[in-house]
Amino acid sequence: MADEENPVRFGILGCAEIARKICRAINLSPNSIIQAISSRSTEKAKQFAIKNSLSELVKVYGNYETVLDDPSVDAVYIPLPTSLHLKWAVLAAQKKKHVLLEKPTALNVEELDQILEACESNGVQFMDGSMWYHHPRTSRMNELLLDPKLFGQVRTIYSSSSYLPPPQFFEDDIRTKADLDGLGALGDAGWYCIGAILWAMNYKLPTTVTALPATTRNSSGVIMSTTVFLHWEQEETTAIFYCSFLSHETMSVSVLGSTGSFHVEDLIIPYEESSATYNFTSGACFADLHIGWNATEQEVRVHNELPQEALMVKEFSRLVKGIKDFKIRPDTRWGGISRASQVVLDAAKASADGGFKSIYI
Amino acid sequence: MADEENPVRFGILGCAEIARKICRAINLSPNSIIQAISSRSTEKAKQFAIKNSLSELVKVYGNYETVLDDPSVDAVYIPLPTSLHLKWAVLAAQKKKHVLLEKPTALNVEELDQILEACESNGVQFMDGSMWYHHPRTSRMNELLLDPKLFGQVRTIYSSSSYLPPPQFFEDDIRTKADLDGLGALGDAGWYCIGAILWAMNYKLPTTVTALPATTRNSSGVIMSTTVFLHWEQEETTAIFYCSFLSHETMSVSVLGSTGSFHVEDLIIPYEESSATYNFTSGACFADLHIGWNATEQEVRVHNELPQEALMVKEFSRLVKGIKDFKIRPDTRWGGISRASQVVLDAAKASADGGFKSIYI
Repeated sequence: MADEENPVRFGILGCAEIARKICRAINLSPNSIIQAISSRSTEKAKQFAIKNSLSELVKVYGNYETVLDDPSVDAVYIPLPTSLHLKWAVLAAQKKKHVLLEKPTALNVEELDQILEACESNGVQFMDGSMWYHHPRTSRMNELLLDPKLFGQVRTIYSSSSYLPPPQFFEDDIRTKADLDGLGALGDAGWYCIGAILWAMNYKLPTTVTALPATTRNSSGVIMSTTVFLHWEQEETTAIFYCSFLSHETMSVSVLGSTGSFHVEDLIIPYEESSATYNFTSGACFADLHIGWNATEQEVRVHNELPQEALMVKEFSRLVKGIKDFKIRPDTRWGGISRASQVVLDAAKASADGGFKSIYI
Repeated sequence: MADEENPVRFGILGCAEIARKICRAINLSPNSIIQAISSRSTEKAKQFAIKNSLSELVKVYGNYETVLDDPSVDAVYIPLPTSLHLKWAVLAAQKKKHVLLEKPTALNVEELDQILEACESNGVQFMDGSMWYHHPRTSRMNELLLDPKLFGQVRTIYSSSSYLPPPQFFEDDIRTKADLDGLGALGDAGWYCIGAILWAMNYKLPTTVTALPATTRNSSGVIMSTTVFLHWEQEETTAIFYCSFLSHETMSVSVLGSTGSFHVEDLIIPYEESSATYNFTSGACFADLHIGWNATEQEVRVHNELPQEALMVKEFSRLVKGIKDFKIRPDTRWGGISRASQVVLDAAKASADGGFKSIYI
């Protein structure tokens, strides 16, 4: 059956800014269509439809419940504030809607476990909205990571995710409000760093997670900037990540192995939509007299047929179609990846909140 | 007076591998010549002279004392093991020889203070052998660091210096011996990271230095790999460095400011001798829909007339000539830079040796 036949029909819960990007991705994905959008008011949802040039066939609802009750909706995309994820993701699963959930997935792993349990018991697919996993650059770097000769053992990883929002952000944005997105920079920018580090470690959880005693909070106590140290004792591998709302834009990861290393500056959002690069060095030694290197960095460019968000939607819909059309069981791998990130996120927060002690996982 | 007239005449104490590079640099520097070399045996020194095609006019001595007693020697380069620096640098200063000292400068800051005091009281110039400070790329990046619009405030710094030596290194090399170079990877690779971080902070010392609890030692207790966290409380600035003998070759620094950032992969030894690059981004924000960046990384290439080691020797000899020919006082700035690095190095070692507690400076 061609992708275009019987596409997965998405309902969107909420008209957050990020929803614009995913609506575009659904339209670009050959196996997916937007079936319904919703907001807390019909007017707001209508404005969103107009602003994003959505088809007149898209249903417009003034509340989220109606989307979940619409039998023509197969799957929902949930870009609501993190504090609302538990309620709406569980309800969606109970209504047999497949769940594409924006990150951070939940306020803590106990909440995420309820969401994952609801998805599993209702036989629906779960995936979080971390789009960079789906870029072919990520797969190419993964091949490197698995190459014992070119890369060797992972020794240390550094990841940075930051941006400097306008002053209004610090007044208004949900990511600065303790009651809406109490995870702050850790949940927003830090989520990607944690994902990148776990990815490089093939999702093995670290032994300890330690927030370093240099954490900046706003007046509500929400983390605006922090640095976190991860340690895998058995492997003697370390990782550091820095996440911040107070620094110039970064979204980098550097992975250093015993025999090779690579780094990417634009991991989360590539500079360009149609291709992306990573920089790789292997087997480098000082040249004679220590006046140069015998091997220098190579830039490798990887092309992608669709933007990474569309590739994410396409992969999600492929899994949904497998369940819907062929009764294949949901793929629990994506939930497992989200859960690993959430566990590390929780530990980092617990460490920052508890005097920067190491948290054993 | 032209550089070529009345050049500074160097004596070399010891024929370590690194001395080959500095001999070449002295020959390339227009204001410097090699006057004498020495080793613990005349035969070894002769072999060194032949291997490095030194002029037949170069005097060859079978011990270090004779170099210091030779009135035709103006300055000495000391590439001896760190544990011998105190003795030979102080003796050289007392014999009125200017001192170019290989890094790490001493086993601890108390030793370095004795060396600096000897240089000051004898009116001789001191400089350590960190060559990258003298590359014009470093000055160019420095202009960036001082630009409040393009770069802003320094928020965080990451530096990595590592290499994977052959197995024999772990048996034989002085950098693995507690009694010769007890600072291990911290004193060797770590010295550069510390220098790069302090340079980015205009040599302001951090409030605290904390080795992270993931330090690998050899059977003699010498550090083979460690990660260290630096914190400037007042500025809310953080830095992390990773130094290791167990990882693929790196010599990177990334400096993240509030409005810009730059990174260099080949800081200590540039890939090429005639030019070097840094990568710089400023004022970057997400593009509309978060599907790209409004400003991407620029690669800036800086050309250099001489290799960085020759530029270092040239600068050192310029200062020596000022003292010798024009009775200008020694420039104490270089000693101050070495001292700042040694203070941080000592604190990192104290933290690693003392259960990873934070050391207040």
